Amino acid sequence: MRTRKKKWAAGELENNPRILRNESEYAGRLTEIVGEGKPLHLEIGCGKGRFIIETSRRNPDINYVAVERDETILATAARRAEENGAGAVVFIAADINDGLQFINSGEVSRLYINFCDPWSRKKKWAKRRLTHDTFLQIYEKLQIPEIFFKTDNRILFEASLESLSRRGWLLENISLDLHASNMPDNIMTEYEEKFSAHGPIYRLEARMPR
Amino acid sequence: MRTRKKKWAAGELENNPRILRNESEYAGRLTEIVGEGKPLHLEIGCGKGRFIIETSRRNPDINYVAVERDETILATAARRAEENGAGAVVFIAADINDGLQFINSGEVSRLYINFCDPWSRKKKWAKRRLTHDTFLQIYEKLQIPEIFFKTDNRILFEASLESLSRRGWLLENISLDLHASNMPDNIMTEYEEKFSAHGPIYRLEARMPR
Repeated sequence: MRTRKKKWAAGELENNPRILRNESEYAGRLTEIVGEGKPLHLEIGCGKGRFIIETSRRNPDINYVAVERDETILATAARRAEENGAGAVVFIAADINDGLQFINSGEVSRLYINFCDPWSRKKKWAKRRLTHDTFLQIYEKLQIPEIFFKTDNRILFEASLESLSRRGWLLENISLDLHASNMPDNIMTEYEEKFSAHGPIYRLEARMPR
Repeated sequence: MRTRKKKWAAGELENNPRILRNESEYAGRLTEIVGEGKPLHLEIGCGKGRFIIETSRRNPDINYVAVERDETILATAARRAEENGAGAVVFIAADINDGLQFINSGEVSRLYINFCDPWSRKKKWAKRRLTHDTFLQIYEKLQIPEIFFKTDNRILFEASLESLSRRGWLLENISLDLHASNMPDNIMTEYEEKFSAHGPIYRLEARMPR
């Protein structure tokens, strides 16, 4: 089973035109590749892509780059993007720990982080969270002016509010129970649909410090 | 019933040594009255005083001023303070809308706001909330360096995070479910004990912008 799955993914990674594979070819050229003249939004940890596919369908005036560490999951996302008529979205297998160096500073105008690993079981793991100060510094270096963040993990959300505040990001449109709030255009991730029955979904928007 | 209650309160207001009544006498002289050489902490909306009585008992090195708009409720709080051996706490009947002008700038080093009226039913009421920008400006003018805030109202807490962020306050020690968090020294208000079964208690600390 495992091999067959991997084989399938290898083919997808090879042939799906939405997947960018050769970093030396796409690094510093994302805008050129996805299309000039439109804002570029980035999702880190896109999973199987449900959120970014639907978001790109609804927003033809925006270009999207979706990043996911796991190549097999990325292949699934890219295949689904083709099957479901996604908008202008390309997929890159990359690890945030490498600093997203293929993005030019000032190129991305919004970052989506949806239901990332909360790393909440051990205190020393806190620095692995995608909203930890270390990662905020990466986003600041890339001059990403806003972050849209969702999670169902209370401890992660508490820590995220604090780290964003500490680094001077402006917190806006906070929801401590997204599905109870009146946000009709919320696009759910796979995870969100599955787990929202277990407790509230937290959401915030943060603007970059001036 | 009503008259008897008011009569009782009138007597308490007249005779309880913890109640400061004549603003011309205490204005600008709080530190002198409560006692020099210790930090002064303020609670706005102390209700029947359970929180501030227990807090003052546990912290003999701090002086406290508790403010409450309703004189009858204030009388109850002051009587309980006497009966329960409260620490250094005095009570003042005052309305925050008058700007707490009896406090000197820089005199208060911490502000407690516990379960204030959420004013959440109508949007236009938002500016009446004790964490609205207008009131934050009063606290800033009084140079109060930190606010400790608790509420069970989600909409109020969301709005408070946003207004504090907007005015540059640093958000720390946020809890989105206080009673599930590990905060063993939490002192519950009357309201908190009664209503915490209905949903989470939210809490934050905010430090004044530099």
